[in-house]
Amino acid sequence: MNRRLEMAKRNKIDLNSDVGESFGIYKLGLDEEVIPVISSANIACGFHAGDPAVMRQTLSLARENNVGAGAHPGLPDLMGFGRRIMDATLEEIKDYVTYQIGALQSFASLQRVKLQHVKPHGALYNMAVQNVEISNVVAEAISGIDRDLILVVLAGPNRNELEAIANRHSIRMAFEFFGDRAYNSDGSLVSRREAGAVLHNPEEVAKRVIKMVIEGVVVAKDGSEIELDADTICVHGDNPEAVALARKIKESLLDSGIAVVPMGTFL
Amino acid sequence: MNRRLEMAKRNKIDLNSDVGESFGIYKLGLDEEVIPVISSANIACGFHAGDPAVMRQTLSLARENNVGAGAHPGLPDLMGFGRRIMDATLEEIKDYVTYQIGALQSFASLQRVKLQHVKPHGALYNMAVQNVEISNVVAEAISGIDRDLILVVLAGPNRNELEAIANRHSIRMAFEFFGDRAYNSDGSLVSRREAGAVLHNPEEVAKRVIKMVIEGVVVAKDGSEIELDADTICVHGDNPEAVALARKIKESLLDSGIAVVPMGTFL
Amino acid sequence: MNRRLEMAKRNKIDLNSDVGESFGIYKLGLDEEVIPVISSANIACGFHAGDPAVMRQTLSLARENNVGAGAHPGLPDLMGFGRRIMDATLEEIKDYVTYQIGALQSFASLQRVKLQHVKPHGALYNMAVQNVEISNVVAEAISGIDRDLILVVLAGPNRNELEAIANRHSIRMAFEFFGDRAYNSDGSLVSRREAGAVLHNPEEVAKRVIKMVIEGVVVAKDGSEIELDADTICVHGDNPEAVALARKIKESLLDSGIAVVPMGTFL
Amino acid sequence: MNRRLEMAKRNKIDLNSDVGESFGIYKLGLDEEVIPVISSANIACGFHAGDPAVMRQTLSLARENNVGAGAHPGLPDLMGFGRRIMDATLEEIKDYVTYQIGALQSFASLQRVKLQHVKPHGALYNMAVQNVEISNVVAEAISGIDRDLILVVLAGPNRNELEAIANRHSIRMAFEFFGDRAYNSDGSLVSRREAGAVLHNPEEVAKRVIKMVIEGVVVAKDGSEIELDADTICVHGDNPEAVALARKIKESLLDSGIAVVPMGTFL
Repeated sequence: MNRRLEMAKRNKIDLNSDVGESFGIYKLGLDEEVIPVISSANIACGFHAGDPAVMRQTLSLARENNVGAGAHPGLPDLMGFGRRIMDATLEEIKDYVTYQIGALQSFASLQRVKLQHVKPHGALYNMAVQNVEISNVVAEAISGIDRDLILVVLAGPNRNELEAIANRHSIRMAFEFFGDRAYNSDGSLVSRREAGAVLHNPEEVAKRVIKMVIEGVVVAKDGSEIELDADTICVHGDNPEAVALARKIKESLLDSGIAVVPMGTFL
Repeated sequence: MNRRLEMAKRNKIDLNSDVGESFGIYKLGLDEEVIPVISSANIACGFHAGDPAVMRQTLSLARENNVGAGAHPGLPDLMGFGRRIMDATLEEIKDYVTYQIGALQSFASLQRVKLQHVKPHGALYNMAVQNVEISNVVAEAISGIDRDLILVVLAGPNRNELEAIANRHSIRMAFEFFGDRAYNSDGSLVSRREAGAVLHNPEEVAKRVIKMVIEGVVVAKDGSEIELDADTICVHGDNPEAVALARKIKESLLDSGIAVVPMGTFL
Repeated sequence: MNRRLEMAKRNKIDLNSDVGESFGIYKLGLDEEVIPVISSANIACGFHAGDPAVMRQTLSLARENNVGAGAHPGLPDLMGFGRRIMDATLEEIKDYVTYQIGALQSFASLQRVKLQHVKPHGALYNMAVQNVEISNVVAEAISGIDRDLILVVLAGPNRNELEAIANRHSIRMAFEFFGDRAYNSDGSLVSRREAGAVLHNPEEVAKRVIKMVIEGVVVAKDGSEIELDADTICVHGDNPEAVALARKIKESLLDSGIAVVPMGTFL
Repeated sequence: MNRRLEMAKRNKIDLNSDVGESFGIYKLGLDEEVIPVISSANIACGFHAGDPAVMRQTLSLARENNVGAGAHPGLPDLMGFGRRIMDATLEEIKDYVTYQIGALQSFASLQRVKLQHVKPHGALYNMAVQNVEISNVVAEAISGIDRDLILVVLAGPNRNELEAIANRHSIRMAFEFFGDRAYNSDGSLVSRREAGAVLHNPEEVAKRVIKMVIEGVVVAKDGSEIELDADTICVHGDNPEAVALARKIKESLLDSGIAVVPMGTFL
């Protein structure tokens, strides 16, 4: 991967997390704790989670912590938290993403903030991993709304196709790495249905992150080393352990001389 | 009213109608027929009616007909079509309006259109008529999102208060007249609960519209003449009769030498 | 099929149609026209269509016309009218069906009516055709709620499996025939994605219905004759043509000496 | 109040709490902790809170703890948790309550449980306190669905009117007392907008409960003693303090020789 060679060694990386997932009276996630740790916040937009008040409050929190704010559009499935694959057409998906980005932009305008990125949520993210046409329509939507918005996609085997989409629509993409997920030797994620798909040892997760950032390498499930160059790392804020892991990852990065900064500052 | 004297005689007016109220498989309103008649389209934004696909399609229709496109935000009550008063706080209302304007703006960006106005829907409109603080938070939202957006309000007894709000937030307001509604002598609408609140004779409605536009005068329920200067007239597209009436009003205006143009062109 | 032989010749059949699909201000379907034609009404229960008021009104209409009333539960996807496959678990599906049957039963109690049947809607019906486990959990739900409720399923190649499910849960099943759909030679429906999947000629549709009822035979797409014994025939009320076809089918049946009666009277 | 005299001294009472208010991924309330403390559980039915899976699970929990299970229908306002007054008609309210009771009954059938009661939630409860016609349509709904269902209403100044409604519809009512709310001298609740409307001292709350149960008397805000005879006492399970208070109230009752039993056992 020549991009990796160009950069020689990465000295900065982005940490992103899904936030703003509360709804009405319902609280979800430790946003106040995880937002100070991360550099980019994926804010739910009301379809799978989030409501107008939560969106406003979460944007404030991101702004106060100098965290890049992004839209986290999902499928219209509040009961299933946007985690259930739905047989929506590409046009429906483009419309849903357009709607949700705009809704969040409006709150950003009120707070004199500019949105930084867009990261599809849950089933929509997974559907995009399976079908590059979904990333294409999301890129199309972004391109028509604001070309400065960065589209976050999985750093995986179809990187070339994704980069072609980014070029076609004149937008930037951020490639994402999951430190707590096992990878196949082709660079794809091991399915959650398989044993060992999710790594639970914080030490191991932190080490994998550092290795990926410094060497551009991940050890796949079969032991082989695969090249993987990601711009942003997904961390979680669902529970105290997740926040502790996010902090540990950040500290490891800082200890290794890697700056943790919003993706928009280096992409 | 000195504004009336200033203008001496109005030679242009806006006709607005609520459109884009379909949802999913459900069709509502004769948008294809009424949009060519009007000059400003109030497009539902998904809370009380409308969905992302409908919003996109309705914006296209407005653009193709050179009609000013506006957001028509409502209360989150799809089952009640946003027509039921809800005890929402001012902050909730501001958040709901912010969300919905942004959602529509995003589609407008994709179509290279700029939204022209914002008109609250149904119960939210009525709540604003009763409580000027609601117009204040809507103005606040608009002011933070895009000061070029015009807020549509009822031309009624509290005009001075409303103009003060417009000035405070540096936005424009469009005052609206209902040709098919009876007025009290103080310039307020006769409640729908009273007999004779709604006028059904198309001839009479058209005449009232012309009188208001040319003379700045409406005959109240008690027979008294009241001064009323409105920038935009609400017409309907729910059924063939409503569309016929809208056409009749437009023809009467044109016959009287009054141009029917988007409010944004003269406010 | 020995069941066919047993009956020798069918002298009665049920006609069912999806009704009660309006929602709030939105009207869908010509319920007033189609309900007098059919013998069983599948009433939407609020997830994909229908709302409490519509459910009440539709039940009244069914009762006044001596039509068997049934629940028509769907996926929680109002925006997609329950037509989009969703990756819901069997437990979720059982819960959704349980909820919706109960909601309708309550209105039935108020009207001193007993529900006759349950027919899954749209994507849920199609999912059940693909995966017999879905019919199994629906049967389980029905069995726990009221064993007198008849489950409507597609008369297709997996009839034996379905009958085993019905026996296991001590409920009755009604096998359904689509007069306007092409069949494969194994007795399954030709996918809508293939050309010729839907038959549009009313004469042809009516003839197929009569042939199926009297001879227990359908001509498959490849010209072969397949045995198919159905208890109920699906007709539509979406538009005047659909209602006309439903009437035509009913007349053809009556002319052939076949009674059109609610499935509950003969199953 | 002759009823009080009749009973001379109450030796049993019901404790009720709102439960089953989680939704999808969102958890709300300490149901596992509070349900073993109470004798009647008000289970949300999906409009303001609750979903089909939560309803099933909460019913199980109630059954395992020998707690009377009841429907807790609310307004269709998930975003506002059913706490916002809505201008719904009496017919709409009756339909909403009918729908929700049935939905829960269906799960009860599956678990071979019979629902014990119905208690309107939040804004709907408050609307019923203001307008006895709402209790009338709820009673009407209950009467048509299952006359064994007990309607829970506020023990307040309009007791006679409410009892007339119960008689008219041949249903039982349970009158409810709030130990943590201040009362006016006419027996109505002090509005939450007034200072001192809610009592926060656990000792005081427990004492008020015991006094009401044993003496049939509450000390009003102005110091006067008012007669108040309630069948059930509302306790909360929102947080550990609320659960602790519920336990304290139960212990005080048991220590005073008062049995805590489901309302259905003595009404």
